[in-house]
Amino acid sequence: MHRTPPRLHLRLIYDGLNFGPGKADLLALIGETGSISAAGRRMKMSYKRAWSLVEEMNAAFRVPLVDTARGGSGGGGAHLTEAGQQVLTHYRAIEARVLRGARSDLDAITALLSDMSDGK
Amino acid sequence: MHRTPPRLHLRLIYDGLNFGPGKADLLALIGETGSISAAGRRMKMSYKRAWSLVEEMNAAFRVPLVDTARGGSGGGGAHLTEAGQQVLTHYRAIEARVLRGARSDLDAITALLSDMSDGK
Repeated sequence: MHRTPPRLHLRLIYDGLNFGPGKADLLALIGETGSISAAGRRMKMSYKRAWSLVEEMNAAFRVPLVDTARGGSGGGGAHLTEAGQQVLTHYRAIEARVLRGARSDLDAITALLSDMSDGK
Repeated sequence: MHRTPPRLHLRLIYDGLNFGPGKADLLALIGETGSISAAGRRMKMSYKRAWSLVEEMNAAFRVPLVDTARGGSGGGGAHLTEAGQQVLTHYRAIEARVLRGARSDLDAITALLSDMSDGK
C-alpha cells in the first residue's frame, strides 16, 4: 500500500503568463532574502534566470510583483510589492485548498499506486 | 481588467511517477479512441512517446491503467482498465474542485494581471 501522499504542482496558464511552483517559490524566497540573486541561489538557479522570471512576472501584472534595485556585482536588493505578496498568498491558498479539499480523491489515486512507486 | 480565467495544470508528484494533464488527457483519449496510436496522434505525440507514457503509468500502479494489445503496423487496440478509469475520474474531480473552490483566489490573481497578458 502506497502511503506517501503526492506533492502537488499547480500551474495557472494565462495567455501571457504561466504561474506555477517555480515562480511562487521564487517570490517567496525574494520576500525572505530580500535579494533576487540569493533567492535564485537557494533554487539553484542562475541570477540571469531568476532575473528573467522576475521581469516576466513584472511585465505580466498591472503593477510589478517585485520591486528591484539593480546593484553592484552581487545584485541589488529586492522586495515583494503588495501585489507580489497578494499573488503569492492567493496561490498558496489555492494549493492548500487542493490538499485539503481533494484529500479523498488524492488518497484514492495514491492507494492504487504500487509499492515500487514509493521508492524513497 | 483581465477577464479570462486561467487554465489549470495540476501535477501529482509521487516518488516514482509524475501524473499531470498530459497523462490524464492521454488516458481520456485512449478511452475515447480505443487506441494508443490514435490517442497519441490527437495529442500530436509520436506513438513511441504515447506508448512510453502508458508503460510508465502501467508500471507505477498496482494494476495496469491501460490494457494493451500490441498489434500490426497500426498498433493494436487498447482500453482503460477499471483502475485507469478510477485514476482519471479522481484526477478530473480534483481539477474541478480547484476551479470551483478556488474561484475567489483565482479571480484575485486574474484581476491583478495587466490587459496585455490577455493577448488572445
